[in-house]
Amino acid sequence: MSAPIPVGPAPVLVLVPGATGAPADGGPRFHLADATVPQLSVTDLVATRGDGVFETIGAFDGVPVNVGPHLARLAHSAAQVELSAPDQATLAEAVDAAIAAHEDVAELSVRVMLTRGIEGTGVPTCWIHARVSDDWTPYRAGMRVATLDRGLSTAVAETSPWLLPGAKTLSYAVNMAAVREAKRRGAVDVLFVASDGYVLEGPTSTLLVRRGDEFTTTPASAGVLPGTSVASLFPWLQAQGHQVAERLMTVADVAGSDGAWLLSSTRLAAPIARLDETELPVDAALTDRFQQVLMGRA
Amino acid sequence: MSAPIPVGPAPVLVLVPGATGAPADGGPRFHLADATVPQLSVTDLVATRGDGVFETIGAFDGVPVNVGPHLARLAHSAAQVELSAPDQATLAEAVDAAIAAHEDVAELSVRVMLTRGIEGTGVPTCWIHARVSDDWTPYRAGMRVATLDRGLSTAVAETSPWLLPGAKTLSYAVNMAAVREAKRRGAVDVLFVASDGYVLEGPTSTLLVRRGDEFTTTPASAGVLPGTSVASLFPWLQAQGHQVAERLMTVADVAGSDGAWLLSSTRLAAPIARLDETELPVDAALTDRFQQVLMGRA
Repeated sequence: MSAPIPVGPAPVLVLVPGATGAPADGGPRFHLADATVPQLSVTDLVATRGDGVFETIGAFDGVPVNVGPHLARLAHSAAQVELSAPDQATLAEAVDAAIAAHEDVAELSVRVMLTRGIEGTGVPTCWIHARVSDDWTPYRAGMRVATLDRGLSTAVAETSPWLLPGAKTLSYAVNMAAVREAKRRGAVDVLFVASDGYVLEGPTSTLLVRRGDEFTTTPASAGVLPGTSVASLFPWLQAQGHQVAERLMTVADVAGSDGAWLLSSTRLAAPIARLDETELPVDAALTDRFQQVLMGRA
Repeated sequence: MSAPIPVGPAPVLVLVPGATGAPADGGPRFHLADATVPQLSVTDLVATRGDGVFETIGAFDGVPVNVGPHLARLAHSAAQVELSAPDQATLAEAVDAAIAAHEDVAELSVRVMLTRGIEGTGVPTCWIHARVSDDWTPYRAGMRVATLDRGLSTAVAETSPWLLPGAKTLSYAVNMAAVREAKRRGAVDVLFVASDGYVLEGPTSTLLVRRGDEFTTTPASAGVLPGTSVASLFPWLQAQGHQVAERLMTVADVAGSDGAWLLSSTRLAAPIARLDETELPVDAALTDRFQQVLMGRA
């Protein structure tokens, strides 16, 4: 359980001990810790049950994007699993501290993690982990995506909240298994499809589809995670004179579209160049402008 | 992220470093470690994705039950998520070592955990954790259970293996959320129901239903975890002259049965005394005999 030998800039770890409630002495709410040594108990419920929620924030040239919306979504996810989240001001400060402590790099991936904590204590565990982003260049040029059945209908968000639709939990084993299945099919990512035939989202991304001047995403009411990236892009698209909409779409709608992207905070806009066996048009210039918006530069 | 102050007998932790492949020097494959200090990296994929598999083995008066079937099922779960498991002989020795190192107690819960390991290393993390079992006495007397929609159909095991039906993964956030929903409904546990109306299993248990002289469980082909406890009970029931079967059942089948139990390795046989609004007969004498079988004493 020793950490790997670091290569490149060292990751930064910030612990938010106690997770909730101000310390009695009004002292610091978080502190830097050594990311290269073990910091988690084997009985932390994230390790025994995948029981926690998280966010991943992108920081570009040291500037984090959409911190407020990410922390609001974390609070929403936490509420869905009945977990108390630290106050958002503290977390925002901790995110800033992690970025400040990290070597200057172009693209940083900053995770904000909240777990149910060590069994029996009732005290959540919370940490921020900042590391150099993976190199997403090939994905941003256009990627091959496989559609995969998610097994659930678009009605579960309304009927079955205990299935945690729309919560960004740390139970992502199915999401990871789906990406492995996509790779077996010669693709690199997944577009999940509901049991009633509507497209949903990627395992770690939000769908955006273009038809003419209209850009559409899946409504959160279908059980998908409300995307922070699409929430940034929509006002920008409207300012450019485009229409935006949230509407259920079928696989055929995406395959017959004028372009589609999977959006996320660190990978940014990744165009779908091929969906299963169908080639889709890729607009490199528009995608580049999306990246600028998603990096907070437009 | 400090450990809680231990009360009662201290838990025992055994680490299986490297997880797979014999050490070059032929040295020990595992060692005792301090369960009260952090042992996991925040970048272990179990902490960032719930990406791992596990088993929980019951040990009664120091004797573990069904170690072989549990470790075989762990290997099966690991294969489903494309994770290499340590060889079963090593794990069985490590389980024995954990039990031997623990203070003598009547009922021990022994977890065998296998994760995808620290990001980027490709080396699984593996540990055994032994602790005193929770007091399950009230559950063994009869419990109130709520049926909850699992959202998936009984066909997914065949059609959609990336949904990991039948794999015992560490992504249990939905299972835990379901138990919280059950408690909101005045129950203490859950019987999951597939979208096509058939009953499945509990969040941490296997269903057994009696009708006259026939005892029935859900077939693994429906996407449930194949139960080690029911696999112990079936031959015993047959030896007593009963019939056993694996067959899909509806909620009405269970509600109208002559008795039903949720089986697990540490809680043992917990009779369903009430399913939603329907009272079920509880056969205390038969349940006591089940406990003896499940403790390896019959």
